[in-house]
Amino acid sequence: MKISLVILINLSIFFILIDGLKIQNHHHQHHLSLAQPLSLKYSNFQVKYFQQKVDHFSYSNNDTFEQRYIISTEHWKSPNGPIWFYAGNEGDIFTFANNTGFMWDNAKKFNAMIIFMEHRYYGESMPYGKKSMQNLSMAGYLTVEQALADYADFIVDIHMTINGARSSPVVIMGGSYGGMLAAWFRIKYPHLCVGALAASAPILQFPDIYDCEGYNRIATKDFTNYSPKCSESIRRSWSAIRRLAKTNDGRKFLSEQFQLCEEFPEQQVQTLIDWIANIWGTLPMIDYPNPADFLSKLPAYPIKVVCQYLTEPDSNDKQLIQSIAKAISVYTNYTGDTECNKINESNDRLGTNAWDFQACTEMVLPECSNGVDDMFEPEKWTFDEFSAGCRQKYGINSDRYKALIMFGGKHISHTATNIIFSNGLRDPWSAGGVLETLSDTLIAIKIPGACHHEDLRSQGPNDPKILLEAREQELQIIGDWLQSYYEQNQIEFKF
Amino acid sequence: MKISLVILINLSIFFILIDGLKIQNHHHQHHLSLAQPLSLKYSNFQVKYFQQKVDHFSYSNNDTFEQRYIISTEHWKSPNGPIWFYAGNEGDIFTFANNTGFMWDNAKKFNAMIIFMEHRYYGESMPYGKKSMQNLSMAGYLTVEQALADYADFIVDIHMTINGARSSPVVIMGGSYGGMLAAWFRIKYPHLCVGALAASAPILQFPDIYDCEGYNRIATKDFTNYSPKCSESIRRSWSAIRRLAKTNDGRKFLSEQFQLCEEFPEQQVQTLIDWIANIWGTLPMIDYPNPADFLSKLPAYPIKVVCQYLTEPDSNDKQLIQSIAKAISVYTNYTGDTECNKINESNDRLGTNAWDFQACTEMVLPECSNGVDDMFEPEKWTFDEFSAGCRQKYGINSDRYKALIMFGGKHISHTATNIIFSNGLRDPWSAGGVLETLSDTLIAIKIPGACHHEDLRSQGPNDPKILLEAREQELQIIGDWLQSYYEQNQIEFKF
Repeated sequence: MKISLVILINLSIFFILIDGLKIQNHHHQHHLSLAQPLSLKYSNFQVKYFQQKVDHFSYSNNDTFEQRYIISTEHWKSPNGPIWFYAGNEGDIFTFANNTGFMWDNAKKFNAMIIFMEHRYYGESMPYGKKSMQNLSMAGYLTVEQALADYADFIVDIHMTINGARSSPVVIMGGSYGGMLAAWFRIKYPHLCVGALAASAPILQFPDIYDCEGYNRIATKDFTNYSPKCSESIRRSWSAIRRLAKTNDGRKFLSEQFQLCEEFPEQQVQTLIDWIANIWGTLPMIDYPNPADFLSKLPAYPIKVVCQYLTEPDSNDKQLIQSIAKAISVYTNYTGDTECNKINESNDRLGTNAWDFQACTEMVLPECSNGVDDMFEPEKWTFDEFSAGCRQKYGINSDRYKALIMFGGKHISHTATNIIFSNGLRDPWSAGGVLETLSDTLIAIKIPGACHHEDLRSQGPNDPKILLEAREQELQIIGDWLQSYYEQNQIEFKF
Repeated sequence: MKISLVILINLSIFFILIDGLKIQNHHHQHHLSLAQPLSLKYSNFQVKYFQQKVDHFSYSNNDTFEQRYIISTEHWKSPNGPIWFYAGNEGDIFTFANNTGFMWDNAKKFNAMIIFMEHRYYGESMPYGKKSMQNLSMAGYLTVEQALADYADFIVDIHMTINGARSSPVVIMGGSYGGMLAAWFRIKYPHLCVGALAASAPILQFPDIYDCEGYNRIATKDFTNYSPKCSESIRRSWSAIRRLAKTNDGRKFLSEQFQLCEEFPEQQVQTLIDWIANIWGTLPMIDYPNPADFLSKLPAYPIKVVCQYLTEPDSNDKQLIQSIAKAISVYTNYTGDTECNKINESNDRLGTNAWDFQACTEMVLPECSNGVDDMFEPEKWTFDEFSAGCRQKYGINSDRYKALIMFGGKHISHTATNIIFSNGLRDPWSAGGVLETLSDTLIAIKIPGACHHEDLRSQGPNDPKILLEAREQELQIIGDWLQSYYEQNQIEFKF
């Protein structure tokens, strides 16, 4: 077993913080304020807390905790108006509420109540407060099944406690991991929702059914499409960095160029490379057509801006790194406010700890690169090495088949119904998504040119036509689900 | 809160041991040998053990235990022959294997592998050995969801470890609580089985959606149908017993008549009444057309035999009790081997403790009687009183809505597929069963004249035609599921 923490860090080179489904060492956390602002760019909502069971599946632990949610009934029509429920994913619920404009933009037309529920062990919804991730006996209840059961219990409570909501049909929505949760919720609790909008949900990105190079291949293509010289510059930069890192002068140069807060010793060159690769791996998710502030404050089409600096792959090491560093600063310092970058700061946000744990237990999402079809340094992935690293970190083995056994993997087409799987085709996560329509009611919507759950974002001035059409199609299908529910249950309701 | 253990005992008057889905005080355990024989009346099987997780839904408890199963590959055709999987319920797995002749009788025609898997916390499948029910931290993992996940993990393991079984379609079967598990398994893990045969599965027998008098009304009808005087005799016997129990002489008389091992004090008259009522409540489940040894060794149509003694409801107290006692002995002493009956022996079989716990937590199945439409003493049921009793006993509240939230209750018709709900209409449990076909693939098979999962029993010489036809229909549908699976997966297989 040659695995060590170093390998775990290697595996983590593209792992991003809030919404990336990857594990370990999210080196760009300095772009996010550590204390999430308790504010929404939308209005007329309330923040509430629901008393939730820590363990839905045994009676050995009968603890409860306060689970946070955001609710807006501004446009809701009582009785029986629909409920649009966002299945919160790995982060503060305000992040998702702020970046899921689709729900706020369209609730009025559907007379819909809006709920964003925070995922357990993220944001303020900590079962054991600040100690929640401290040891297995407290952290162990961070599982997908528990999270889905949280949503189930809560939805039933909403039906029973909100006047007029007794027969309100629920549409569950989510993006990325939240999209997986939405799809899985519909699969496991179809009696509690009429359908799921699963945006950019890589439910097929699991060991043994997934080509682990998929993510990096698409990410690379996103750079190549602006200019082959762009991705080629990145591909060549790795060896340039390694050469420069061998001398004091070279390391000084690298530190200056990348605006590092501290110089790094030679043996930390991997950390620097991981930090850079992580940013290149992240940008393809968020190469949105409008300026955005999702993972970092960025201009419209940030990769296009990045690639303007990467036009000379053949230049010498120092010149190449100078241009790479300028390109990186589009991500790290678009606002000009960043004083310096910390590449080896261990992220102590609970959210990160929590996702690392999920990724090491049930949410094993293989990632690798070959350096040929992608612009990254070659990196193999094997379950055994991955699991060994997790065992070292948490004392438990990874669950190789858990998600497939629980939720069906590829074998959902004959039994699941009413799920929209939407994927932006420039989103690297689409490699693990459902890209073909599986049945009359399991609809794949592919959005060429779009990135990570771009359809869930607020409508913006630069949105391409195909994105607008995808949103319209989604609303049409959701409307059909609701219509059919009202007819079947003989409820008169106009939306 | 006037609830106490006495009320719990009152509630339990019809609760039966192995397969009755009721809680508490199974007074007839002296008819069952306490050590289940490790033998089957069928041959060519193996008994094996599977290393199972104690907790499938958290990582706080990473213990494992050995789960027992019976497997027969005698008729199985490799590769890809079907697997008939019995979802073991609340008892030693040999009991179910011996009383589910349907699987043994028909496996050959289908080239099917047979597996009976024991439910956790029953028989030998004890997560913490003899201490398993000792406290909540050990007993708490006795839940339906954990049991279903046991079956899921095991089925995947069978696919992966038995040569030629990789693509073997699984049909899940079960009777009573096992039938509920079979139906729920298909609902929760449709990717792991092609369909479920849920025999006598009262999945609608839960608080707020069930008329709690249903069970006793049907039970009473089973006696009345042989003769109205029969049920009338029983109805009148309660006050006769209470009158006799007021004097020493009367209690002596009662003890002699009912062959009690010990005389009972006046305040224990309720215990005697519970014991008798329990037997009257049990017989309608097992009024089978052939002699059987399921819950007790019995003649064919035992209620018919019982009613031969109950022809004079108008006779005086002592005469009435004499005939009631003779009738009871059909159940308690058909073999003539019983020396005496113990009415207040607390049953220390783990199976009973375990079912009591399930009935107090998730499997809350309301039972009541009004004494008018049924022949029992009136007995109300309220969730709050029931739950208070459970809280007193186990320190936790009952889960009023758990089964409905988890499995959908009445709201399965639009999403679940491929389930046969079979019910004998003389079976009192049919009151909580699915009696109407819900969709093309959710088929209700009603069997007039049949009792508790009679269709799952071995074919016998007295089986009525309608029972044989029901079995044929079930086999036909199962065959269609398999056929369709092989076609969809383009596997050539003849059965």
